[in-house]
Amino acid sequence: MNHYQRIVLASRPHGQVTPDNFRIETLPVPEINEGEVLIRNHYLSLDPYMRGRMEDAKSYAAPQPLNETMIGGTVGEVVASKNARFQVGDKVIGMLGWTEMGVSDGTLLRKLDTTHIPLSAYLGAVGMPGLTAWYGLTQIMQPKAGETVVVSAASGAVGSVVGQLAKQLGCRVVGIAGGAEKCAYVVNELGFDACVDYKAGQLEADLASATPQGIDAVFENVGGEVFDASLGRMNAFGRIALCGMIAGYNGEQISIKNARVFLTMRLTLRGFIVSEHMDLWPQGLQELGTKVATGQLKFRESVADGIGNAPQAFIGLLKGQNFGKQLVKLI
Amino acid sequence: MNHYQRIVLASRPHGQVTPDNFRIETLPVPEINEGEVLIRNHYLSLDPYMRGRMEDAKSYAAPQPLNETMIGGTVGEVVASKNARFQVGDKVIGMLGWTEMGVSDGTLLRKLDTTHIPLSAYLGAVGMPGLTAWYGLTQIMQPKAGETVVVSAASGAVGSVVGQLAKQLGCRVVGIAGGAEKCAYVVNELGFDACVDYKAGQLEADLASATPQGIDAVFENVGGEVFDASLGRMNAFGRIALCGMIAGYNGEQISIKNARVFLTMRLTLRGFIVSEHMDLWPQGLQELGTKVATGQLKFRESVADGIGNAPQAFIGLLKGQNFGKQLVKLI
Repeated sequence: MNHYQRIVLASRPHGQVTPDNFRIETLPVPEINEGEVLIRNHYLSLDPYMRGRMEDAKSYAAPQPLNETMIGGTVGEVVASKNARFQVGDKVIGMLGWTEMGVSDGTLLRKLDTTHIPLSAYLGAVGMPGLTAWYGLTQIMQPKAGETVVVSAASGAVGSVVGQLAKQLGCRVVGIAGGAEKCAYVVNELGFDACVDYKAGQLEADLASATPQGIDAVFENVGGEVFDASLGRMNAFGRIALCGMIAGYNGEQISIKNARVFLTMRLTLRGFIVSEHMDLWPQGLQELGTKVATGQLKFRESVADGIGNAPQAFIGLLKGQNFGKQLVKLI
Repeated sequence: MNHYQRIVLASRPHGQVTPDNFRIETLPVPEINEGEVLIRNHYLSLDPYMRGRMEDAKSYAAPQPLNETMIGGTVGEVVASKNARFQVGDKVIGMLGWTEMGVSDGTLLRKLDTTHIPLSAYLGAVGMPGLTAWYGLTQIMQPKAGETVVVSAASGAVGSVVGQLAKQLGCRVVGIAGGAEKCAYVVNELGFDACVDYKAGQLEADLASATPQGIDAVFENVGGEVFDASLGRMNAFGRIALCGMIAGYNGEQISIKNARVFLTMRLTLRGFIVSEHMDLWPQGLQELGTKVATGQLKFRESVADGIGNAPQAFIGLLKGQNFGKQLVKLI
């Protein structure tokens, strides 16, 4: 293997992301210098946050530069090392981006133990998405047993973890997802108490039926009509962890129409980015890893095959076509 | 004085409040029973929250009943007492409503010391509005010296206290108010660093000029376009105390258009009602009372004369025609 492929951002989207926003490139495998590690990636993580980085706008992170490797989390294997901390064969997680191979100086690289946890899970339930769920639930929503928790994008990599953790805390857990198949999975496989299919055309009525005691805490991934529906059911002193607004990722303005409820129900809303709370990662990863290793935390993956399919898989993710954690398998 | 007048809610408003939503009644002065106190009110407080009570809608408090005395805070003087805790001549604060006289069993009645603090101030800067300001600022916004704080309805009973307290904490304080006269007062008399006149037609641009370092904390009384303008200037980890949405008090839907900012700037928003935090009232009242008595906290009052003018004064308050705390003087 003398060459590898990577995907760069070719242009910024106007509205929906299209395949020609990306460009695939073939490059020679580089030599590594003293202190560096060469990694062959096994899986690439695709996540909604990447849509935000494609914009050249003020946000919590710098924009993805044009003509550089698309940002992204990766798990893979060390294939050459001039760094004493890493040996050939080590499994590692890093942020090498949409690329089959990459060089790291070890700074953001972490060795993984795959004895009890599959490699890909470190990009999902035992990785950034799982930690996002864990942080929002335990640090912002703080639900008590018996309270009703609502999770949007419930079958996704983040939502599925939120709901399972909330069930283990003794909450009534209601998911919101797109389509009967996802809803069936959320209830039958993940153990949520109910799931509302927002595509069924009667979101407000269905959510009211599923939350007879109102809603005490929300984990919001979607925004727009889905969020407004939850707001309309909030109980006094409800807490909202705002994690994403995928409904607005194509640049649509995202309004909150039920804004009065924040006042009348004395709600607390907090937007957050889990990467700003690194101090809590060891605790969260420990808990999530134990639950995955012992089967207490289930997850599902949508796996695209080969780096060439990454753009299409990412576009599908933004449309909700994935089912669980979206990955690209590279080997 | 054998008779007194009161004002009852005659009908619920459809949209804007009109004078015929109220009815004035003349009643004989009642005899008091053992344990009771008869009070002659000197001032009646008019506050935006009363508009919400006029609706028959799910909110944080029960609706104002039809044909009963309009709810409201009052300060007055005991004129007859069969309660050992109160003597004739005592100055008291209570919730007797829009009425010249009232009977209390003493439960919600508190004696006032007017040696250093004028009686009317207990309905304003040293009363519920002042505490609302103090709570939102100290418990939710928690600004640090050097941060930029924005206060809407800045010349009002609540906003004027928020801004003065924030200045004393070392913040840059920017008010938003309606009209050049109110803005001049906010800057020249209350000592805010700047004030934006939202009626001048360039709210966003003027707010940007007044907040060159962005906004770290907001005390929101208005909602609507005013709130969206502040949201558009928020810095990372900004805090918002949501106290009121007077822009929507006539039943208009209040939207937040800049909702994406909650996520991109990782904001915390909390709606609150100060009456639910009675545990902090003694501390807050102590601080506010000392500041008023020593001249560190200025306030202004709009005083309507006589109970018959209460409805018109209240309608004016909802339109922002008051200047500072709106009172009705009864004696």
